[in-house]
Amino acid sequence: MAKPLEGIKVLEIGQEIQGPFAALFLADLGASVTKIEKRRTGDPSRWMFPKMIGGAEAKNPKVSHYFIAMNRGKRSVTLNLRKPEAIEIIKRLTAAYDVLLTNYRPGVLDRRGLGFEELRKVNPRIIFGQASSWGPKGPWTTRPSRDILAQAAAGLMAKTGMPDDPPIPAGAFIADHSGGLSLAAGIMAALFARERTGQGQRVDASIYGTLIAMQSLEINYTSVSGLETQRAARGHQFMRGGMYSAFRTKDGYICIAGVHDKLWHSFCRITGIEHLEHDQEISANVVRNFQGYRIQKIMDEIFPTRTTREWLDDFVKADILATEVADYKQLLQSEQAHVNGYLRHMDHPEAGPITVVGCPVSVGGEPDLHAAPPPELGQHTEEVLLEAGYGWEEIDKLRESEVI
Amino acid sequence: MAKPLEGIKVLEIGQEIQGPFAALFLADLGASVTKIEKRRTGDPSRWMFPKMIGGAEAKNPKVSHYFIAMNRGKRSVTLNLRKPEAIEIIKRLTAAYDVLLTNYRPGVLDRRGLGFEELRKVNPRIIFGQASSWGPKGPWTTRPSRDILAQAAAGLMAKTGMPDDPPIPAGAFIADHSGGLSLAAGIMAALFARERTGQGQRVDASIYGTLIAMQSLEINYTSVSGLETQRAARGHQFMRGGMYSAFRTKDGYICIAGVHDKLWHSFCRITGIEHLEHDQEISANVVRNFQGYRIQKIMDEIFPTRTTREWLDDFVKADILATEVADYKQLLQSEQAHVNGYLRHMDHPEAGPITVVGCPVSVGGEPDLHAAPPPELGQHTEEVLLEAGYGWEEIDKLRESEVI
Repeated sequence: MAKPLEGIKVLEIGQEIQGPFAALFLADLGASVTKIEKRRTGDPSRWMFPKMIGGAEAKNPKVSHYFIAMNRGKRSVTLNLRKPEAIEIIKRLTAAYDVLLTNYRPGVLDRRGLGFEELRKVNPRIIFGQASSWGPKGPWTTRPSRDILAQAAAGLMAKTGMPDDPPIPAGAFIADHSGGLSLAAGIMAALFARERTGQGQRVDASIYGTLIAMQSLEINYTSVSGLETQRAARGHQFMRGGMYSAFRTKDGYICIAGVHDKLWHSFCRITGIEHLEHDQEISANVVRNFQGYRIQKIMDEIFPTRTTREWLDDFVKADILATEVADYKQLLQSEQAHVNGYLRHMDHPEAGPITVVGCPVSVGGEPDLHAAPPPELGQHTEEVLLEAGYGWEEIDKLRESEVI
Repeated sequence: MAKPLEGIKVLEIGQEIQGPFAALFLADLGASVTKIEKRRTGDPSRWMFPKMIGGAEAKNPKVSHYFIAMNRGKRSVTLNLRKPEAIEIIKRLTAAYDVLLTNYRPGVLDRRGLGFEELRKVNPRIIFGQASSWGPKGPWTTRPSRDILAQAAAGLMAKTGMPDDPPIPAGAFIADHSGGLSLAAGIMAALFARERTGQGQRVDASIYGTLIAMQSLEINYTSVSGLETQRAARGHQFMRGGMYSAFRTKDGYICIAGVHDKLWHSFCRITGIEHLEHDQEISANVVRNFQGYRIQKIMDEIFPTRTTREWLDDFVKADILATEVADYKQLLQSEQAHVNGYLRHMDHPEAGPITVVGCPVSVGGEPDLHAAPPPELGQHTEEVLLEAGYGWEEIDKLRESEVI
């Protein structure tokens, strides 16, 4: 069966993470994405995080992992949006596209005459996706942001870290990425509705709102109980001690997700703490899993005696919830991630065969195991303009006047 | 305009987070969700995290914040899926529904005769959404999991924490929540495709895959460069020192997301470090923002001299990227979150008026500011069975034989 969004054309006026990642998600589900980039410089992700941090030690020092991550399989068109001809080009493309999405700050496209109200005059079926940091309304609407500010404002930072740490963020840009996923989801809802109504709509999704939603369970705890939680330390706001934690082993770290009553006996046998099996202060479920600083200390001594693999072999056999704490090199070897297309193979024109992150969703059964490389800056400018009905002469003129 | 999924009927056979949260997201976009729960006990989120941790201090000690968070606005039907009559009921409902989604482990519904292949015989338009911990294929497919194990296996745990901490998780169940968002997105793609093909499809989304995708930028760094990153400490894997960090103030914490070259002068003026403005070891962009342990130490001394509010007033005026590190009580007061419907008002039958987490996406402009309460266990069993064509006598019999 074809992919679900096959035939859907997406125009992305975005940069960095949220907009591009939303478009990437749609592309993974079958949409074709044309990315509008600034003339000369392009999306900053082409050069940000000095192309390859690590310099000489890096395998592919000129290849942007960041741009690959967000833009694989897209087409690239360069445009100078300060020129009226460029605005005209976007409008002509809009007429033939299904979705226009942006993570430029709310209002920026409007000021250029490319707001939803303008674009729907050109194409009443167009879906206008506005990604934002803080949401379309309210005092912070046009305030710029970064991933870490969303983590700070949405409460996650205050809840992450050991008791003596300053507030620290989750160690990757999960706010930005998840904000992109939200926008993609909203756009698909609007695509569905359009099939029934014939009308495009405006879709708004923000990073701040998404990160709040990603803590629905926890935030509602405070709103309903009136009580503030403490930071998660090694576990979670509700399980700050005990067996819901990572432990150092002989060669790395293992993570245990609590020990169920029915498995406690096996756990004690495997870890050699049979003498503590009936110790009230250790074994009571709530203590063992939620508040057990004593058992945590004991296990901090025991786990380093064997390798992660040795522990895991025994735990998995016994149905005890455990897994390796993987670093990225270990993750990149994960069979589970590869067979499901969460990691994919790419033949990159400069870097050669590499592994890249794929898509967490498959529709219709078979996940993709391969990913297409990202475009060169402006690689498809002519192709896309020709599709939009521009002739070669016009294209030459647009190039001369530095529109494209 | 109506909500985009208006008229779409979702049957949720789920519990805890991923399945219920996916259904909730669809509900927020207009779908009507019927939740199937176990007879007597219902979804464990009705009683898990001892209904209200904190006991006597809690405002509403009998109200489950967890169940509210995942199930507001749904209908509840109780069913004993071990009884053949219950399987028959699900099939009859399937005939009239658009989506059936589950986060029971892959294979569980199949063994009860409720797999996608069976259900599409009843309704070829049904979309079957399978949430999972690890994905539909591979060695870990049926291995159970918990949020912290996804964080461990997907690499996030290894990247979160201060250098001397053990690997620690992001402090909320962001893996479980984001896995639910992925499933909702995949289901909407399939709903869209169904409008064009007339056929339902199977949709798979996993927590593990989602958390990998939420680190696309960072994981691709290691795959492309061949270099492992270090944990994020106060900032990010690429920005471990410097001004991308939270700092203690007189009354809390403030978070700064780096200081741009153009704003460095203002920053020095506001914080009173004019004498360091041209100090190479402090001021060079890469040092200041990515690796500046010296400036971090200096600012750790300066920020505690004023309140968060005082600093923010100056920084926001100067366009310096900064925000408060909010705890949940502070977040719950956020005007920005309320006006965008990221937080909503609920009149709860027992707890009275409360604030709950809303939806990060709005389609068509106006966000909802109100949320409907969650159902009582089995509150809609009769209503839903009557809709499915069962008569009162049959319903009585089903109740007698403990099917419902």
